[in-house]
Parts: sequence; C-alpha cells; structure tokens
Amino acid sequence: MGKRMVVVGGVAGGASAAAKAKRENPDLEVVVYEKSGFVSYGACGLPYVLSGEIPSLERLIARTPEEFRKQGIGVHPHHEVVDINPEERVLTVFDHGEGRTFQDRYDYLVLATGARPTLPPIPGTEQAGVYTLRSMEDGERLLRALEGARRAAILGAGYIGLEVAEAFRKRGLEVTLLEAKDRPLPHWDEEVGTLLRGELERHGVEVWTGVRVLALRGSGRVEAVETSEGVVPADLVLIATGVRPNTELAQAMGVALGPTGAIATDERMRTNLEGVFAAGDVAESFHRVLGRPYWLPLGDVANKHGRTAGSVIAGKEARFHGVVGTAIFKAFRLAVATTGLSWEAALREGYRAKKAFIQSRDGAHYYPGSAPLWVELVYEEGTDRLLGGAVVAHGHGALRVDVLAALLHRRGTLEDLLALDLAYAPPYSPVWDPLLIAAQQAR
Amino acid sequence: MGKRMVVVGGVAGGASAAAKAKRENPDLEVVVYEKSGFVSYGACGLPYVLSGEIPSLERLIARTPEEFRKQGIGVHPHHEVVDINPEERVLTVFDHGEGRTFQDRYDYLVLATGARPTLPPIPGTEQAGVYTLRSMEDGERLLRALEGARRAAILGAGYIGLEVAEAFRKRGLEVTLLEAKDRPLPHWDEEVGTLLRGELERHGVEVWTGVRVLALRGSGRVEAVETSEGVVPADLVLIATGVRPNTELAQAMGVALGPTGAIATDERMRTNLEGVFAAGDVAESFHRVLGRPYWLPLGDVANKHGRTAGSVIAGKEARFHGVVGTAIFKAFRLAVATTGLSWEAALREGYRAKKAFIQSRDGAHYYPGSAPLWVELVYEEGTDRLLGGAVVAHGHGALRVDVLAALLHRRGTLEDLLALDLAYAPPYSPVWDPLLIAAQQAR
Repeated sequence: MGKRMVVVGGVAGGASAAAKAKRENPDLEVVVYEKSGFVSYGACGLPYVLSGEIPSLERLIARTPEEFRKQGIGVHPHHEVVDINPEERVLTVFDHGEGRTFQDRYDYLVLATGARPTLPPIPGTEQAGVYTLRSMEDGERLLRALEGARRAAILGAGYIGLEVAEAFRKRGLEVTLLEAKDRPLPHWDEEVGTLLRGELERHGVEVWTGVRVLALRGSGRVEAVETSEGVVPADLVLIATGVRPNTELAQAMGVALGPTGAIATDERMRTNLEGVFAAGDVAESFHRVLGRPYWLPLGDVANKHGRTAGSVIAGKEARFHGVVGTAIFKAFRLAVATTGLSWEAALREGYRAKKAFIQSRDGAHYYPGSAPLWVELVYEEGTDRLLGGAVVAHGHGALRVDVLAALLHRRGTLEDLLALDLAYAPPYSPVWDPLLIAAQQAR
Repeated sequence: MGKRMVVVGGVAGGASAAAKAKRENPDLEVVVYEKSGFVSYGACGLPYVLSGEIPSLERLIARTPEEFRKQGIGVHPHHEVVDINPEERVLTVFDHGEGRTFQDRYDYLVLATGARPTLPPIPGTEQAGVYTLRSMEDGERLLRALEGARRAAILGAGYIGLEVAEAFRKRGLEVTLLEAKDRPLPHWDEEVGTLLRGELERHGVEVWTGVRVLALRGSGRVEAVETSEGVVPADLVLIATGVRPNTELAQAMGVALGPTGAIATDERMRTNLEGVFAAGDVAESFHRVLGRPYWLPLGDVANKHGRTAGSVIAGKEARFHGVVGTAIFKAFRLAVATTGLSWEAALREGYRAKKAFIQSRDGAHYYPGSAPLWVELVYEEGTDRLLGGAVVAHGHGALRVDVLAALLHRRGTLEDLLALDLAYAPPYSPVWDPLLIAAQQAR
C-alpha cells in the first residue's frame, strides 16, 4: 500500500508539493487541507483583479479542486488543521463546512501554512473599511469595498502597497501612500525610490514618506488616518506594512524555526522532524549572497519549495538551490526589478560596498518608441565582486536583472559581467547593453 | 610628442577604437579614414529607415565628424586607404573628394574595414533594381528604389533578409522571400524556423524555401527572379545571402587571417604585426563554447572590439573576452533571440546534443495581454552541459536569452539553470520562468 502524504495549506507551495509528489509517485495517497475556501491560486495576481484588469478572482486559480481530484489528490478547502502529533503522526482537522473535528494520519507531512499580514500597533485597525491583501477572501472583501469608496490610504510602500496604489488609481480612487521610511520601496536604494516616487506622483498618487501613522480614526468605520504629518481622510484603508510566517502549528508540534523566524529546512525542504517538510511562505530559504538563511515570501520561491518537497517525498532526487533575493514588480509604467543586496544592505552587512547607477534606454537611441531604462550595480570595492543590482524599465526589459541574478549565483564580478555576450538589436537594446554600460561605469 | 594612431574604417569598430583611445590618452594623435561618406553609425538600424519607422538615415549617426573633431580626432570620410607599408608604417590614402593620393604614417594602426555582401554566382545581378543592404549608401539607394516599387524579392532569409521583408511590407510592397535551405533563419533549428515562417506568412510575406535561384531576369532592369520552383516577378531585388570580411588590405600588408577567413587577433585585438590591431566585422572573435575562433559580424561585437583596441593602444589594460554567439532580431511581432550552438550545429560539432523546446507565456496565465513565448535549450547528453538556446517572444521578454548566454560563458549545466532565482511577477513571467520550464523538460 502507498504511503500517505498530507499537505497543510494548499495555495502555492502546498499545491505544488501535492501535484508534484502524486505525479512522480502515483502510489502515494495525497491529501491537502486548506483552511480557506481556495486552493492553488496566484495570489500575486490579486492587485490586477482589484484594478479591474482581470475580470474575476476565479481567473487566478491555477488548478481547481476538481482537477486535483482527477489526478487522485484529495483536496479539502475550509479544513483547518488545528493540531499535529508528530510521534503518532496524527493530525486533528476542523471542518469549517460541517462544523466537526476529525483525525487523520500521515507518513509524510508538508507544512505550507503561508504567511499573514502584520498589523501596526495603533488604535482603530479593527474598524470596518480597514483591509489587508493576502488571500482570495481578502480580495473578495476589497472588491466589495471598492464599490462606493472614494478615498483610499495605503499604509506601507512595499510591493503590495505599490501594486495596490496603481490598482486603486485605475479604479478612480484618490490614493495616499504612507510610508514610515524616507522613500517608496524602502528596502532598496534611494535612486530606485526616486524613480518610483516620480512615477507614482505622475499618476496621481500622493506619496507621504517619513511619516508615522498614529491611529485610524472613525467610529466603527474608518474615516481618516492620523499621522505625524497630518490627517489623511480615507474611507478605505489598506494595511500593507509587512507579513509574518504562520509558524504556530509548526512550533506547537516541535518543528524548529530558523534565525529568520520561519521554518528551517535543508536543501530538500526537510524540517528537523522525520517525515515533516515545509514549503512556501512559512519556510526559510538559503541566501546565496548572504550565505545564511533568509526569508523570501514570494510566489515563485513557494512553488520551487513545493516542487522540491514533492519530488523528495516521491523518492526523487531534488534540491532547492536557494535564492539571491530576485524580485520584480510593476508600478504603473515602470517595471522595477532587484536582486541580491542593495547598497545600503551591503554596507549593513559589512561589505566595502560601492554602487553605480546609470540611465540608458531599452532600445537603440534612434529606435522609435524606445524608453528610458536604469541600472544600478552594487559591488565590493577591491574584489569587484557583484553583490546586487536593480533594473528599472518600461516593461520586460527589466528582466535583465536575471543576468545579474545568474552572476550572483556564482559570485561573479564586474569583469564577468563585462565579458558577457548579450543580445543586441535596435528594438531591444542599445549597442552597449545597459548592464555593460553600468559595469563600465563601475570599473 | 604623442604617438599617432590611424584607423582604417570608421563605422562601428573603428569609430569606437578612435573615440576610446583618445578619451583614455588625449596625447594620442588619432585619425580615421573612411572610404564611404559616413562615419560612426548604427548600420543595424537601416531596416527601420527603410520601413519608414525612422524618418531619416541621419538618425542612425551615433557621433558626427564634427563631434569627433571637437574631441580632437581627425575624421576623413571619402578617404580610401589603398596601400599600407608595415615596415615603414606608412599608408597611401586616396581622397575621393579631391581626387588625389597622399601618404600618412602611423605608430598604431587599427584595421576596421568591415565586411561586404556576397553576390550569388548567377546571371543578372548587375542590373538596375538589384540591391544589397550594408552601408548608409546602400540605404540611400534602397530608399530611392522604394518609390514606385511594387514587387520585391529578397534572396536569403537570414537577419537582413527577414528584417527587410518586414520593412518592405510596411512600405506596402508585395514581398517574396527566397531561401535555399528548408526554412527561414536556416542557421538555427527548425522549431524557430517554423515560428518565423508562420509570422512572416501572417504578415503577407510569401516564403519560398528549399529553392535555388537561377538568374535575375530583365534587360538592364530586373523584372523577375528565375528559380528552381518557378519565376517570381519583381521590380526590386534585395540580395541578402551573406557577407564576407574586407581583408584585402590586411592581406596585402601581411596581416594573418584566422581559420574563419577574417583577421586573427589575440584578446587585445592585436594582429600578428607589431602595432597593428583589427576590430569589427573584419576581425575574428574567440567562441567560448566552440573553443576556437569564430566570425560574428555584429554591431555590438564590433563596438567591443573597437573599445578594446582603443584601450590597449591608449596603454590601458583591456581584453575582449570572446563571444558565445548571442543575437536577437525582430520579425514583425516576434523577437527571436539565439545564443551558443543550435542543436544541428552541436551535432555537427560532434556533441551528443539533445534539445528541449517548450511554449510558455511572457506573463502569468491570467495576466491580460500576456503573449506566447517559446524556449529552446540545447544541451549535451550525459553531462547536461548547456550548449545553446533560443527564446522567441513578443518583445523584450526574448532577452531571457542573455541568462543562457551568461551560463554559456562558464560552461553552465541544466542544473545551474534550474538553480537560478529569476524575477517573477504576473506582468512579466509565469510563476515558473519559461527558462526553468524548459530546463525541467530537458531533465
């Protein structure tokens, strides 16, 4: 008889683990318990449903429960795993639909419980009109809230805050973006933040930086955000100040967390407990530039985690090779891509870090419709080792950041970058690729 | 007193060499002789002038003679170097403007005489209405020819033939593309050729492949192309069957050619003769995958050659690190990018080559406006070493080929590719980057 694999959480990492394991080893019994009503969806697409560009939340679903069942995978939405006994390998599950609790057993367990938004410690966050954006249910609530909303305030200018600012503007709302640090995308360097600020303001977003949020005012329904710099009227508030991993279940069963506070795993996504794996936003990754565990709760990483865990459980050789921190997002016309360490982060890490920042174009100077493109390179003085970089462009040209990511994987230098034979034609690049121009400037 | 640097040919490699040397060492006397009427221009932009997208040939000029002179570089268009005595370091120059010959001397010489189109050995190529496209003068002639032209035949479905097919269609001409091999872009594999053929035909280009061209018919002015498969009426014929390096001057002075028939150089672009350098389309490059000299007459390579030669002459440390054969071009909506070896080329080289070919998208499945994207990977069976690859997309997403190029530079494997942390967001990529999907398929 086949072994039984139970997956706790079925959004990205969990869904990938289940699908991959069953595909590689059809003898496995595979069951997925998902607390919410949705499994296997692209949460990264939620801002584009809010904007109206994607006509319905259902479009985000990668694989329906029906498709999972056809593959022989038991998928159970609205089922919350409330307790796990690792000695007996027994789970206690609460079925929210039926209102009953039952037990199940596993040979292999995948913890894919994801992450949840953190709320700032200020009064008023419990009121109506205050939202976060993480799950499909969050998306449903926000979609309803958008009808009739006029003035939105967004707390936090990270990826989610920035993407939703665009979505809200596309819905015709007045939008004020509130950020405690001195710039949008504060985890990256100021040159990129300056570009972002300009783009946001050109599209009618009010950007308040260096501002402390003190309270959400209102009497049961939010009316305004009280800040260190003044009051922002708002009938809709999105809190996008950060997320934290849902590690409670893991901790209760004795699964060890790593230094980041997410679940520690090895390259095969195994936790400290025999037969117990972790995948997705609840799990750490190894950062190949920093050389230590790092928490990178992004959809592509979650899928890689899950696929690795699923393969290993199915008896296949598989490893997750870690991250270098690559990310990209869209802010109106700008595509902003970063990888590795920002200059500020590199300095904090003790590197003798330098940076080069150049403006170029995404096509030949004479090619009609070519648009500006910016490159930042972060490198170590003396060794010229590349530590990180950013590419800001109008569209897919920002994917040049992947070349930097490839170099970071192998401790590449500026010289290694300059040696590259990159693709050139007038519609796609200047004759000197912007990456090469930046590397020349750096040397 | 400063040394004297003479550059023969001032389009791309020569112009780069001159500008870089003078910038690095202002004491150098720098003189450029250019046979044609134009220096320092982006010949790769010529098809977009023909199409009308770029309003004039002058837009292609990167740096005017006036700008060179302001930098202290003597630039002489319409000056043809007809003889060089390397023992005396003396050149004989014919001034086409004045109709006179004079002599000059050099301490450093850069041969940047470029390449020229080859003509097929068939009758009728000398007639009016028959063109090639290489120089600004070619562009001027073709622009004039387009007025009144109705039916064009293009001989050769390489980059130039394909780009001009699009340009001619945009000008409203009927276009027949004639290719001796069995597909467009015959130096690459058939999957890409099939995509190209579909795109060409969707845009009204008649594509004849596997066809021998026998003669250009007409009595002084071309009227039709006679082929093994029938007669193609045409009042305008573009010959785009290939180019060859202009090595005559080099050979006459005793500069050694390499196995490719272009000038052999070392990493510093030095030829076998003391003080004599070569740069651009007349010079070979070292191919890092093949491990031997390779001729890659492309604009970005020419600029790198020139910059390297200029730096070395100015007394700076510089090396040209060779190529892996990366190229990209546009064919209507498709961006077609290739790097390294095609599967067929790898087989010819004796590799136990395999290929994977996948269709994916340039954004998340649910993201509006995302478009198809294809990836081919060529790799060695057993070692999984990456040998080459292609990305076909609708726009800048095809620059993913640069990631493959980066891997080829260091003999990367499929596993190295799978390890990469690539940028993901719904507008720019599926959650599994197409490169990773292709690598998974290959393994």
